[in-house]
Amino acid sequence: MIAEIIAVGSEMLTPFRQDTNSLYLTAALNDLGVQVAYKTIVGDSLAHLTSAAAIAISRADIVIFSGGLGPTEDDLTREAAAAAIGVELHPDNGILAALYKRFAARQMVMPPNNAKQADVLDGALALDNKNGSAPGQYLDTVVDGHRKIVILLPGPPNELKPLFDEQVRPRLAASLPIRHLAKRMLRMALIPESHVDARTAPIYKQYPDVETTILAHSGEIQLHFLCAKPTLSEAQARVDELTGKIEAEMEDAIFSSHGESLEEVVLLHLGMRHLTLATAESCTGGLLAQRLTAIPGSSRYFLGGAVVYSDALKTAFADVPAELISTHGPVSPEVAHSLAEGIRARTGASLGVSITGIAGPTPGSPGPDANKPIGLVYIGLADGHETQVKEFRLPGDRDRIRLWASQQALELVRRHLL
Amino acid sequence: MIAEIIAVGSEMLTPFRQDTNSLYLTAALNDLGVQVAYKTIVGDSLAHLTSAAAIAISRADIVIFSGGLGPTEDDLTREAAAAAIGVELHPDNGILAALYKRFAARQMVMPPNNAKQADVLDGALALDNKNGSAPGQYLDTVVDGHRKIVILLPGPPNELKPLFDEQVRPRLAASLPIRHLAKRMLRMALIPESHVDARTAPIYKQYPDVETTILAHSGEIQLHFLCAKPTLSEAQARVDELTGKIEAEMEDAIFSSHGESLEEVVLLHLGMRHLTLATAESCTGGLLAQRLTAIPGSSRYFLGGAVVYSDALKTAFADVPAELISTHGPVSPEVAHSLAEGIRARTGASLGVSITGIAGPTPGSPGPDANKPIGLVYIGLADGHETQVKEFRLPGDRDRIRLWASQQALELVRRHLL
Repeated sequence: MIAEIIAVGSEMLTPFRQDTNSLYLTAALNDLGVQVAYKTIVGDSLAHLTSAAAIAISRADIVIFSGGLGPTEDDLTREAAAAAIGVELHPDNGILAALYKRFAARQMVMPPNNAKQADVLDGALALDNKNGSAPGQYLDTVVDGHRKIVILLPGPPNELKPLFDEQVRPRLAASLPIRHLAKRMLRMALIPESHVDARTAPIYKQYPDVETTILAHSGEIQLHFLCAKPTLSEAQARVDELTGKIEAEMEDAIFSSHGESLEEVVLLHLGMRHLTLATAESCTGGLLAQRLTAIPGSSRYFLGGAVVYSDALKTAFADVPAELISTHGPVSPEVAHSLAEGIRARTGASLGVSITGIAGPTPGSPGPDANKPIGLVYIGLADGHETQVKEFRLPGDRDRIRLWASQQALELVRRHLL
Repeated sequence: MIAEIIAVGSEMLTPFRQDTNSLYLTAALNDLGVQVAYKTIVGDSLAHLTSAAAIAISRADIVIFSGGLGPTEDDLTREAAAAAIGVELHPDNGILAALYKRFAARQMVMPPNNAKQADVLDGALALDNKNGSAPGQYLDTVVDGHRKIVILLPGPPNELKPLFDEQVRPRLAASLPIRHLAKRMLRMALIPESHVDARTAPIYKQYPDVETTILAHSGEIQLHFLCAKPTLSEAQARVDELTGKIEAEMEDAIFSSHGESLEEVVLLHLGMRHLTLATAESCTGGLLAQRLTAIPGSSRYFLGGAVVYSDALKTAFADVPAELISTHGPVSPEVAHSLAEGIRARTGASLGVSITGIAGPTPGSPGPDANKPIGLVYIGLADGHETQVKEFRLPGDRDRIRLWASQQALELVRRHLL
């Protein structure tokens, strides 16, 4: 069975807005064993929407609409779906009563337009929407001799997701062959995608029944594995066998085998060893601290740190000797070394990590840094016994250099804690 | 004339990847006066792709394909477009020679598959791709008695964008009625979209010839204005007249009338007044500093600061008296006040800004903060003469509370500098 997802709304045909519901719906459909063959984005025009609906119903077994179920003149999904399937709409008295009640509860008179939200496709089941006024609809029917499942969902994600999970997913599951899915994800940082593929392809190609997807973004490689079998234990066994072999091949490069982010893994390792961390950031300007503090509970292992953007603050907050900076330049292994030790001592953290570099777009400041290239980054790590400093030459623009520098710092801490 | 954009690639029918080229293409087409009526996303299946191509060519005047032009078996856009239009493909000898040369330059033998990249639709113009091997194609033809412009572009954005800008845009412009566009954008922070709309709609509705779009995201409201006229001065005059009236209505709420971000505006104001800024962040954990340092050149006005995630660091880096924290709790106006003054004094900055709050998901720590609600945030601003503290109750989850807190802090500094 194949599916088509139709996102309805003229705002998604502007340069400003994108359909995102389809990513969620695609994941949910894939879990049910259904592939998405087409996605269509169409505006609030009855002619365009009816034509898109008719095409989808002719070429897909399951058609899911998101959006266009509200009370305004522009909300035309119900009308278009009815015309495309060849059925009528009828008002559902239960929904109509609920709509009147909703307005009455807020001591308002319902504008007449709103009644159209109670219009249901003949033969369809209305799906209660607990986060909004427009109900969803589920129609399992036959069009031109073929079984078609047509689903209408509201556009706002906070309405669409619970409605799909609670009312659509179980109905679809009951209509489809039973299958059991096993999934895993392995995550690696800072390795080129081509290296990962070259080393893992000979392994995963021996598992044609496991769908392997390699994704690269933001200094990270993800390997997604998906396997469907008649029983869950069979599916799980295949996925575990394959991931086990890939873990053996990639070893320490894998930072997460259960989906945690790199910052979560670093915090977990700190927690297991009862250690704390502090940061002193120059070119990343708080990005590393921000990533760590984005994780709930990070305050137990991350004490904080300093954003030492100016030379004076490197001295004031991390006791880097001013003459060290004037001799070697703020972007130097010597300053990274001193910053890491200084922030550790000042904060009383078990580990101090420092980042100093040239993020661009302009090269280093006058003085010792004047001829150092954009992308040159030094990262220091002090643990009270020894202090290491690593040099990196990061490609790309300012944003990418900053992101990768924070990624390298997290990876340095992770490997230190292994 | 209406357009359809077809994004080709099975990876965009997974939960992991999304078409983003269409946003760029839509902006470019809108500038040329062309509306996008449909967007279709289709996988690397010849049958699906040919069907999608035929539908697009029947319903749109301009059809742009992105992706599926590479050398692999999965790259089928050329074949599908040819079948849908009813023309043949022929090898272009110039392109073929260039492909052989490309490989020779790297001392490699070209795999035979690559030759298919030189296949051109009969009647189409091949468009040189300076960032990749697959050329684009531009076909201006008649299908079933209707003029159709069919454009094939490579999928990678760094290939598609220059190819479109340099070779497609001028050709489309020459085929379409001349029009001159004026655009403006006004940006406001931290005002509900409905308030902005209520106050501005009576104004912009008097300008039906100016297309007004209101967008809300990340604690910011954007008003986009677009006007097309036979001459640029007419278009510009209408847009300027409308934005002038809206600026008069919204006054200081508008932080940017030429597109700058809130952090850029804050840095500009600091620069104009020869002032410097330092930050002390608790719940935002470096997010505010990270946003400021993301702007190139920020080091002239932003000195840095401290991420005072633990109570001890509030004292160590900003001299907040420990007894103030134990009496009032770290999330209190007293601590925000002391933090702002302390970070200003320690760094020697003209302005010190502080953020302390409860970002959740768990409520405040035991002690004085135990019963304070998630979303309670205090922001302090010290300028050496006086220190103000504002209290906020921010809704939403951890990420949203942190983002809005950083937004409120920037807005507080901006208004202070007005």
